[in-house]
Amino acid sequence: MGFFSKDIATMDDLFVHTLRDIYYAEKQILKALPDMIEKATDPQLKQSFQSHLQETKNQVKRVEEVFAMHGVEAKGVNCPAIDGILEEADEIAGEVDDKQVLDAALIAAAQAVEHYEMTRYGTLVAWAKQLGRNDCAAVLQKNLDEEKSADKKLTTLAESSINRKAA
Amino acid sequence: MGFFSKDIATMDDLFVHTLRDIYYAEKQILKALPDMIEKATDPQLKQSFQSHLQETKNQVKRVEEVFAMHGVEAKGVNCPAIDGILEEADEIAGEVDDKQVLDAALIAAAQAVEHYEMTRYGTLVAWAKQLGRNDCAAVLQKNLDEEKSADKKLTTLAESSINRKAA
Repeated sequence: MGFFSKDIATMDDLFVHTLRDIYYAEKQILKALPDMIEKATDPQLKQSFQSHLQETKNQVKRVEEVFAMHGVEAKGVNCPAIDGILEEADEIAGEVDDKQVLDAALIAAAQAVEHYEMTRYGTLVAWAKQLGRNDCAAVLQKNLDEEKSADKKLTTLAESSINRKAA
Repeated sequence: MGFFSKDIATMDDLFVHTLRDIYYAEKQILKALPDMIEKATDPQLKQSFQSHLQETKNQVKRVEEVFAMHGVEAKGVNCPAIDGILEEADEIAGEVDDKQVLDAALIAAAQAVEHYEMTRYGTLVAWAKQLGRNDCAAVLQKNLDEEKSADKKLTTLAESSINRKAA
């Protein structure tokens, strides 16, 4: 971690810390997605995870852009939240045998990831604006919008076909 | 855990497992909230966490109601996701000294918790309906609506005063 006890003194420090948190999270998600793509059976779900892998690569670049705009080093910090969410995704996938039930479990796991990203980007956008950095806020907003859209697409896919096949 | 490897065979098993996941999560949140109430400085934020503690107690009862309706034992399963989210909340709170910056960090941490609950309840409502259990879905929907509302209130509080004071 880049921070030690009581090392966050200002809102700017908190903003940078949280940017490093989501940077670490995005990179962990990049590592986890190929396994989810492999495990998914439904072709639309597989395709959806594949598209999200491409989106995630762009999101990492946008976070790096914000680091540069803000004049701080692009690096991650420990993020127990995403580690826990991905650990749980892996655990549940390992417990399901039926392929169609597994698809439903994978969607739920992916949506937990999306929701974590949505809350962090939502916070970062608000803080960037408060710090007078509308330029950083605009870049982060693109990631927030993509996460919201990815989450909605998964809900539609779940409700239109995956859950019905699994039940 | 109540499940061992490949112990989730059907959508019904997956539904019960996820209900146990959120049951454990709600109980961990109940344990974490008093500390967040104590750490919050802004009176409105303190009050908001206090109200959410009461809401969370009701949400636990509703989850127990769904266990009873579904005829399964009310018990939790290990949930690394909420453990990670709460660990991260605790870590960040320990790193911030300034009280107003801490309030902003506490809101962000609480919203990460809300988002986890929103995604799990959203999934559970969809699965309950798919399983023909609209009765269970209706009870779970109440928790989902409360979490969404709690999240919105925190956004309003952050954007209307807390972030400005902290910046």
